[in-house]
Amino acid sequence: MGKVSAAFSLKHVLVLSLALNVGLILRVLHEGGEKNLEKENRDTAAGAGAVMASKEAHAGMTSSSSTGAAEAVAGGGDDGSVINLDHGDPTMYERFWQQMGDKTTVVIPGWQYISYFSDVRNLCWFLEPEFANAVVNLHKVVGNAISVDHHIVVGTGSTQLFQAVLYALSPADTSEPMSVVSAAPYYSSYPLQTDYLKSGLYKWAGDAYKFSKDTPYVELVTSPNNPDGSTRQAVVNQSEGILLHDLAYYWPQYTPISFPADQDIMLFTVSKSTGHAGTRIGWALIRDREIAKKMTKFIEINTIGVSKDSQLRAAKVLQAVSDSYDRDGNPKESKAFFQYGYNLMAERWRNLRAAVNMSGLFSLPDFPVEVCTFSRRAFAPQPAFAWLKCEGEIEDCESFIRKHKILTRGGKHFGVSPKYVRISMLDRDEKFNLFTERLSKIHN
Amino acid sequence: MGKVSAAFSLKHVLVLSLALNVGLILRVLHEGGEKNLEKENRDTAAGAGAVMASKEAHAGMTSSSSTGAAEAVAGGGDDGSVINLDHGDPTMYERFWQQMGDKTTVVIPGWQYISYFSDVRNLCWFLEPEFANAVVNLHKVVGNAISVDHHIVVGTGSTQLFQAVLYALSPADTSEPMSVVSAAPYYSSYPLQTDYLKSGLYKWAGDAYKFSKDTPYVELVTSPNNPDGSTRQAVVNQSEGILLHDLAYYWPQYTPISFPADQDIMLFTVSKSTGHAGTRIGWALIRDREIAKKMTKFIEINTIGVSKDSQLRAAKVLQAVSDSYDRDGNPKESKAFFQYGYNLMAERWRNLRAAVNMSGLFSLPDFPVEVCTFSRRAFAPQPAFAWLKCEGEIEDCESFIRKHKILTRGGKHFGVSPKYVRISMLDRDEKFNLFTERLSKIHN
Repeated sequence: MGKVSAAFSLKHVLVLSLALNVGLILRVLHEGGEKNLEKENRDTAAGAGAVMASKEAHAGMTSSSSTGAAEAVAGGGDDGSVINLDHGDPTMYERFWQQMGDKTTVVIPGWQYISYFSDVRNLCWFLEPEFANAVVNLHKVVGNAISVDHHIVVGTGSTQLFQAVLYALSPADTSEPMSVVSAAPYYSSYPLQTDYLKSGLYKWAGDAYKFSKDTPYVELVTSPNNPDGSTRQAVVNQSEGILLHDLAYYWPQYTPISFPADQDIMLFTVSKSTGHAGTRIGWALIRDREIAKKMTKFIEINTIGVSKDSQLRAAKVLQAVSDSYDRDGNPKESKAFFQYGYNLMAERWRNLRAAVNMSGLFSLPDFPVEVCTFSRRAFAPQPAFAWLKCEGEIEDCESFIRKHKILTRGGKHFGVSPKYVRISMLDRDEKFNLFTERLSKIHN
Repeated sequence: MGKVSAAFSLKHVLVLSLALNVGLILRVLHEGGEKNLEKENRDTAAGAGAVMASKEAHAGMTSSSSTGAAEAVAGGGDDGSVINLDHGDPTMYERFWQQMGDKTTVVIPGWQYISYFSDVRNLCWFLEPEFANAVVNLHKVVGNAISVDHHIVVGTGSTQLFQAVLYALSPADTSEPMSVVSAAPYYSSYPLQTDYLKSGLYKWAGDAYKFSKDTPYVELVTSPNNPDGSTRQAVVNQSEGILLHDLAYYWPQYTPISFPADQDIMLFTVSKSTGHAGTRIGWALIRDREIAKKMTKFIEINTIGVSKDSQLRAAKVLQAVSDSYDRDGNPKESKAFFQYGYNLMAERWRNLRAAVNMSGLFSLPDFPVEVCTFSRRAFAPQPAFAWLKCEGEIEDCESFIRKHKILTRGGKHFGVSPKYVRISMLDRDEKFNLFTERLSKIHN
């Protein structure tokens, strides 16, 4: 396998390199012209580079795979290129926003938003009022969370907010770090985000099902869950625990909205709601004033606030989504965002299940049908990740699928068996279609 | 004093509140209209809020003062309002960028820069190529640093990069955290940024002059120094040390550029170079590939990259600055950025020194005149902060000046005597002029 992929790698890197050069020449010829072309070239290169970078990284943004093969997206048919679905880059939404034209274009004059401060009357002094309003409005429209009686804290993605919560909840004077747990399978980044600085304040303590210490702890409840899409509740039931609800995927394109969440600590992110991962904007809804203040302090020390430019852009995007619905939650336009996302996810899940059936080697979780209070439609969850299981005697599903040049993230990163892999459902059409096509043809 | 300021506070909060209401009414009347007005209202409110927020914070972004008085900026003459110069918010540059008009306006369509990735061929996969180019070009024009043979790592401000460096330099397997030192007076945020998570990797070890342990350490060399503006060199001379050069203020409006810095680890930030603090963009020039990779990993774990929107904006601003100079470093336009900054800083320092002379209670550091290789002008440093000393029997300079409703940051936060205070020189004209006017009238 090693030799085959090395040879494969060189050939394909060469092809990519040539393609890139052609792209660059075209760019020079059409300077300032066709933006789409530029983007396409970058994407192709990105695929190649991602796999190169993956050589040096463990599970994270760069792939957990150690293959050296080049990656490309076929124009049609399966060219045997590497398909990287290891990370959840939400480029699926690009096409929708392109169709929206100028509606969410943001324009920022050079002299505005220069200051560190956004609104010092607010406890979270770097929170742009426009962004805060857009968050409140969107939750009102979708009905997925109650934002009244909550403080909004903006973060550089929900990743930063997660760390801000840990900092805020840690007891001030304790000899032992606070335990951080989550029921397996849990988001693969939680352990590393908790432990990378060897903090004396908090410490990853693994699977919540196995946690029995009688000390302060935080339980991370991700619902719908990353990686497996299940609806979640807390599993540890002890007096000293605090719950952090990561609701990144609690949006109506992924799961039926069954009630407005009203937890003490809730995290959301633009990356998964509208697909704008590059803005690095997340928000927390925090009931307790002191916790919100301490989170704000964390972000002050960590990055002295959060990019104004991205807050403004996120505000514009979230508000455009809200504005495309009337007061009863009915879409005002034929192309309303959640309808688009719902339809595309439904189609992808149909195609994936068909591919899994054709192959006969894999299985997927089944989800119960429920009524969505937002769309008034009854449907089963169609998560942002597929949690695929290799059936029969295949023990290492990630390695097995990688032989077919599909990069996924194996179950061990999520605290469970290597028979499972997580696969992003949010990539561009071309790549996703190539993936299901190839998967359907994998037989023993 | 307590009662006086309490009464003062209520009256002024009321005035401000009325002013705000008037502002809000005007905004409703002129919806979508006059942007400047909106900005002015926000600024006034910001002043008030900053002091309110200061009640709950120690030295940091919010003031270290505990006064409850309201703050305002006088339209003319001294109205006795609070002048907050505790933090270095670089709003001084707002006017320049306003005069530049649309030249640095950034426009981002809703569908672009959605992905987490910027350029995965680059070691720093979230670095926008446009921003990287602008950084290289600006250093070439100014001649303040050598960027060739260095990797560029972008960060959410240089604050995040500082932490990324500590993470990257920490020995992988050590029982004892690495020591972090800096010669006093050192930047007041270093101790907190190092210790807030009680990391097992690194630990604040105080004044570099007093450091004598024979263990791995990092020495932070800030030059020109924050708070005192002096040109700095490393002071610890041991074999196991690594130097981090924080060059945030090594720009020709503040200090003569005497040579292009070519250190192994150099940090810069848009906040202090062009004044765009709200973008939260900093950059590091790193010679060693492994250190740059580990810094990139830190930023991946900490915030999964850095806002694309702000990188694009910063790129546009930095490039506009470069473009306003010809190949020989001569300004092409009458309003070139560094000339504007230099002239304003020179005027402010003249006014400040005159005020200090009139008062007779204070002193300021003297700096040697040197030739600037960029402007070919001989001048003495005119730092972004004034490092003011209370002479005679005044022991607590911060408290003494606060009696005159001027908020500053006291020497103890910088590891030295409370006879010193740090005062921001980068605020808006109105506030700075009010400050020098009031300072000149302080007598015993």
